[in-house]
Amino acid sequence: MSKATLPEIGVSDLLPRLKDQGYDSERVARRRAWIEEKTGVSLAHIGSVSFETEELRGNIENPIGAAQVPMGIAGPVLVDGRHAKGLFYVPMATSEGALIRSYERGMVALTKAGGVQTAILADENQIVPTFFFPGVAAAAAFSEWLPAQFEHLRAIAESTTRHGKLTDVKSYQVGRQVLVNFGFFTGDAQGMNMLVKAADAACQWIQKSYPIASYFVFSGMSSEKRPSGFLLTRGKGKRVTAGALLPHDVLRMYLHCTAEQLFRVWHSTAIGHLSANAIGYNAQYANGLTAIFIATGQDVANVVNAACGITNFELQPEGLYVSLTLPALTVATVGGGTGLPTQREALSIMGCNGASKAKKFAEIVAAAVLGGEISMGAAITTGEFVAAHEHYGRNRPK
Amino acid sequence: MSKATLPEIGVSDLLPRLKDQGYDSERVARRRAWIEEKTGVSLAHIGSVSFETEELRGNIENPIGAAQVPMGIAGPVLVDGRHAKGLFYVPMATSEGALIRSYERGMVALTKAGGVQTAILADENQIVPTFFFPGVAAAAAFSEWLPAQFEHLRAIAESTTRHGKLTDVKSYQVGRQVLVNFGFFTGDAQGMNMLVKAADAACQWIQKSYPIASYFVFSGMSSEKRPSGFLLTRGKGKRVTAGALLPHDVLRMYLHCTAEQLFRVWHSTAIGHLSANAIGYNAQYANGLTAIFIATGQDVANVVNAACGITNFELQPEGLYVSLTLPALTVATVGGGTGLPTQREALSIMGCNGASKAKKFAEIVAAAVLGGEISMGAAITTGEFVAAHEHYGRNRPK
Amino acid sequence: MSKATLPEIGVSDLLPRLKDQGYDSERVARRRAWIEEKTGVSLAHIGSVSFETEELRGNIENPIGAAQVPMGIAGPVLVDGRHAKGLFYVPMATSEGALIRSYERGMVALTKAGGVQTAILADENQIVPTFFFPGVAAAAAFSEWLPAQFEHLRAIAESTTRHGKLTDVKSYQVGRQVLVNFGFFTGDAQGMNMLVKAADAACQWIQKSYPIASYFVFSGMSSEKRPSGFLLTRGKGKRVTAGALLPHDVLRMYLHCTAEQLFRVWHSTAIGHLSANAIGYNAQYANGLTAIFIATGQDVANVVNAACGITNFELQPEGLYVSLTLPALTVATVGGGTGLPTQREALSIMGCNGASKAKKFAEIVAAAVLGGEISMGAAITTGEFVAAHEHYGRNRPK
Amino acid sequence: MSKATLPEIGVSDLLPRLKDQGYDSERVARRRAWIEEKTGVSLAHIGSVSFETEELRGNIENPIGAAQVPMGIAGPVLVDGRHAKGLFYVPMATSEGALIRSYERGMVALTKAGGVQTAILADENQIVPTFFFPGVAAAAAFSEWLPAQFEHLRAIAESTTRHGKLTDVKSYQVGRQVLVNFGFFTGDAQGMNMLVKAADAACQWIQKSYPIASYFVFSGMSSEKRPSGFLLTRGKGKRVTAGALLPHDVLRMYLHCTAEQLFRVWHSTAIGHLSANAIGYNAQYANGLTAIFIATGQDVANVVNAACGITNFELQPEGLYVSLTLPALTVATVGGGTGLPTQREALSIMGCNGASKAKKFAEIVAAAVLGGEISMGAAITTGEFVAAHEHYGRNRPK
Repeated sequence: MSKATLPEIGVSDLLPRLKDQGYDSERVARRRAWIEEKTGVSLAHIGSVSFETEELRGNIENPIGAAQVPMGIAGPVLVDGRHAKGLFYVPMATSEGALIRSYERGMVALTKAGGVQTAILADENQIVPTFFFPGVAAAAAFSEWLPAQFEHLRAIAESTTRHGKLTDVKSYQVGRQVLVNFGFFTGDAQGMNMLVKAADAACQWIQKSYPIASYFVFSGMSSEKRPSGFLLTRGKGKRVTAGALLPHDVLRMYLHCTAEQLFRVWHSTAIGHLSANAIGYNAQYANGLTAIFIATGQDVANVVNAACGITNFELQPEGLYVSLTLPALTVATVGGGTGLPTQREALSIMGCNGASKAKKFAEIVAAAVLGGEISMGAAITTGEFVAAHEHYGRNRPK
Repeated sequence: MSKATLPEIGVSDLLPRLKDQGYDSERVARRRAWIEEKTGVSLAHIGSVSFETEELRGNIENPIGAAQVPMGIAGPVLVDGRHAKGLFYVPMATSEGALIRSYERGMVALTKAGGVQTAILADENQIVPTFFFPGVAAAAAFSEWLPAQFEHLRAIAESTTRHGKLTDVKSYQVGRQVLVNFGFFTGDAQGMNMLVKAADAACQWIQKSYPIASYFVFSGMSSEKRPSGFLLTRGKGKRVTAGALLPHDVLRMYLHCTAEQLFRVWHSTAIGHLSANAIGYNAQYANGLTAIFIATGQDVANVVNAACGITNFELQPEGLYVSLTLPALTVATVGGGTGLPTQREALSIMGCNGASKAKKFAEIVAAAVLGGEISMGAAITTGEFVAAHEHYGRNRPK
Repeated sequence: MSKATLPEIGVSDLLPRLKDQGYDSERVARRRAWIEEKTGVSLAHIGSVSFETEELRGNIENPIGAAQVPMGIAGPVLVDGRHAKGLFYVPMATSEGALIRSYERGMVALTKAGGVQTAILADENQIVPTFFFPGVAAAAAFSEWLPAQFEHLRAIAESTTRHGKLTDVKSYQVGRQVLVNFGFFTGDAQGMNMLVKAADAACQWIQKSYPIASYFVFSGMSSEKRPSGFLLTRGKGKRVTAGALLPHDVLRMYLHCTAEQLFRVWHSTAIGHLSANAIGYNAQYANGLTAIFIATGQDVANVVNAACGITNFELQPEGLYVSLTLPALTVATVGGGTGLPTQREALSIMGCNGASKAKKFAEIVAAAVLGGEISMGAAITTGEFVAAHEHYGRNRPK
Repeated sequence: MSKATLPEIGVSDLLPRLKDQGYDSERVARRRAWIEEKTGVSLAHIGSVSFETEELRGNIENPIGAAQVPMGIAGPVLVDGRHAKGLFYVPMATSEGALIRSYERGMVALTKAGGVQTAILADENQIVPTFFFPGVAAAAAFSEWLPAQFEHLRAIAESTTRHGKLTDVKSYQVGRQVLVNFGFFTGDAQGMNMLVKAADAACQWIQKSYPIASYFVFSGMSSEKRPSGFLLTRGKGKRVTAGALLPHDVLRMYLHCTAEQLFRVWHSTAIGHLSANAIGYNAQYANGLTAIFIATGQDVANVVNAACGITNFELQPEGLYVSLTLPALTVATVGGGTGLPTQREALSIMGCNGASKAKKFAEIVAAAVLGGEISMGAAITTGEFVAAHEHYGRNRPK
């Protein structure tokens, strides 16, 4: 298309600006009607929202309604954790047929095996501003100056938030640029906005105290919503682990395979992961995480960092020890989309709605996702995968 | 929790098995009521579905209703592609405040700059079964035998599908294991189930023809829903690129910064990505991809592979050339969740519902996501990021 | 040091320029004397070269003599390959105590197990020039034009070399840049200079035929002497594999451990590799490769790419199947340092000096390096590692 | 080759075992003669060693002589560091023609630009033993117990060494395995053997104090001699940086290009590195590091970790700011091969022989390697690369 044939773009092509950003139901309808007219399509289902659209304020702009994503229930899974204890049913929102069946099978097998041990190993979100200097020597001097400022930085950072705690400051100098990794405890919130605000205040204090430095509040290093190897060691949000011993009889009855067969899947696919230069190893983290994140109002884009982890299967005389470690599980039970009506209900199913529930929720997520790891492994070794998708899925074009 | 205190797990704890899997509205309600009773929470909003629940069959199991994810509109974005041409409005479903505002700003800037060029560079989904041999010599013999079987494999594989085409077979031997990469064209479908079925048939033919080999249909190498370096070169689904020259005046008026400033963000955060050993480079692919995937019924877990790509900013006299390349964009306009009521409406907004629309849709997605890349970069250099999230977001705990 | 205190740099500080670059022994001595005077140190040992210094021409500039690197012999290793067959003794040059003892033990164990199967899976060096275009659409047009030019490119490229063969051209477009991967067969030479010359000729032809394109002959993508995930699939030079079944009695007698113990080392350190986001998996490739490369006149810096590979240990009833795959083994038996006197002798020990020997040599290298993998693994499980280094090493400061 | 045709392996095929391991010149000659007879080749040059072969004890086993690797001199390079100050000539041992010329040009350009700033940012070697537990909860309890034991661990670890200092203990739990990262200061030695001994003592103490734990002293995570992303942030040995501003006139006179041209090489090859999923970014670290490591008696296999780093070029009004950061530079001035005759002489050329010189040496290495980065970049943009290798190299098969 040559420039000559480009459509004329006028003010009438821009989305309508409505009073108070237009969150009341009448203005949401007007915006929807505007799009319907522009595009000639009916948006009746999108417009069908079961709650006051004013509630959307703070979660979205230019609202026209809601996507309805199918929600089902998987489980139960028996969790023996530090923060989660008992039998849980896990809501999952997805349109991928057979997904819930796969997770359900794995969760039941784990439950029959006596439950899943879980533990939170760390709970610290990360943000990494970057500072600029005229040369490597000036940058090195800053790298040396910084550690002694921790208490100042903590005071400044924590003055911007009621819940956040500055837990660590660590710098990585690359040439004449110094990337400063702030670690924060963000309570039950995902905490990214809290982090940005606190880090920006800390950076402004640094710049005032050390005038030579200029900075950007983001360097890309923290790998928020990006895949990176750094996440495996530095983590992001909750670092959580879950593990269980699957006895031989549970393997046979619920997963239809032997410990040796399931281990062989792990071993051969570990070679596949190494060959692809993958980050970590997993069978299907993204499936379970995405479905739970959508159901419970998490920032779903965080699946990209949350899905970086390591699943391990280990043969032992009594059966197969299965575990996973998710070093970058950024989940919340307050803030963001967690307060939206369907999402709040979904969190409540697990007793995870509101304050003081994020660690419990993280442990349930880890246990549920482990269910998917063993179920997928079993489906590969028994050849059930193809059959299950033929049976449950319909995502073939018709 | 000692084993002694574990709850007794009985049949009554398992989810109720209902007739025909229970997709009619009465049985969905019954299942929901069962969960409500088990957990003591009301699920009225989840139960509020605007369409016949029988439509959920094939997309989910154990349905209890739907998650309502806020949907808004960003744009317009002017696209000058091979398959998409014109002005598009892009539906995005998210609960992250400020996200749509960020994308909207970027799309408008691209439009004012004269639009975004896009191109589909490849269109091939991947699956990588793995074959096992007694030793490296036997595996090497198989590696040599395989290439000549391409036509046989194609005939077998294509006999299982109306739309799929086998486009490539390439093997990677690692020790005595041979990972066989099948490339498929899957039309307008995401195609994973199509791939599995076709690959399994091809593998069975191989095993019959070359009896020494056993196999698993998955090796993990294809990086479906996993982050890996392999995706950058081998790709998965559509490999799509989008680029535009942002003139100085557009930068100033719509992004409030200079070309040099925006480039400096790219440069300094590229160092951050390298330091974190990230896969590729991007500002916020996951945000835009996730919001579009939820809105349009994509398999949202595919965001993990789709978000592996490279954004580039290049200074030139007239302004800043900005581009992105997404080598693993697995998007569909038929199958999976694309036929669900709200999702079908969302696709229709872009004229992308149904057959022969997947390439067009992929180009629009690439253009929209490029809008987010420049908008985020600008927010970093101008310091607007903090302010914007204070203003639009509400994801602070209350 | 302030600029004020910087030493004055004059012509007398530059290295002396000598007639014909100064390779005859008198001028080498004069250069050495110049350095001795500048620095006040005696370089008698460096000056002790057993051959005509004129032979150094083409291998080094500003010569002052030679480093004497201790050389020992490891082996024998019994190889059952395509190109190497029989019992081989492997010269290794190193100053790391215990290294040769470690490799020797492993090679003998492999020999007692009945030998090592080896195979060359691919033999293709890579170079990836990059072409620049005004925008993504122009780049996409070039990407489409290129494949049909293969025969032209082959003719041009092969006109610059007697031995090289252009085997493949594959392009990767990233934004408005197109990285063009040329695959070459380079015979028995490492071939990098051959590649550069041929690729440059091909690029010049492209630029003449497609005038819009400018280019650089290097893009960094080929990962020559750099670590990258791309090497695992695309390879560089020889892709070679080696494998053997270690029966239980050989494990016990020569490696002092069981199959289960050795496997457990593999398994637990595979988790360590995944945690570190390593490229591939290995125990000590770099030790063996470096020692052989120095002994035989390879371009030792190629160890960085050559050490990217995958070692696998697999339990089976009869013992442990051990294998390795080196996808980027860039080794030569002609050219470079292979013709230098001590290096030529080292190659001759293995019957690998001169033309038509590179594949044989690559197979011997793979077999020898596999010896190091099993020996290191055994030392970890038995705790012998500490003791061996106390016994054989002296690299403690005195 | 069928098993039937395998050669008979007898005692006479094993390398001769000689008295006191056979380091005296007579026994070295006897071993050499044995190989000469077995293989029918003369090893006269390998046997030509300019010093007492007893000096090889501790550096090699089964010695037969030495490889003579051509050594030349590059430089001078003006260094303005913390530990190195002044003008240095750098010995490099290589057989790659044009390598020294390339480094020399870059070093002279840096010198003419006013010298290179350098700084040591960290000095800590790493070893990561791994501990095993029955389940994830038991492992988590250990992870919590460990930090308080730091003083005990330090006392135990430092009791095994005169020079080493335990600087850090950090653990990474993955499932039921806990990888414990010990950081050590190892003085002027490379320190790996020191580390292994100290870590093993610490691990034995842990096992006594916490009986449930078993361990391996290596987990692979420290990435000793392996390429990994972890090295970029955690480092290994010296983390060193070097930087300089190249004014426009120096660029033109010594590198024959403009700042913009050289920057464009960086930018376009950064895209190449990202596309290949490389670790870090560099032009030719491995060339310079390998040549210096061989010349000075470093453990050359450490080039694999040392070559993981980041080179950055940044445009500014006065010219181009060039820098590199090597986070895993494991270099020594005592121990290992540093005391061998030619290697000791090479270290002395830079005033880096013996105690208290490792940091100075590391800074000189960084400055020299930076010379190679700019020189290679310039060769790419000017097209001189092809010509230089035609002129100086002879590594074409004849």
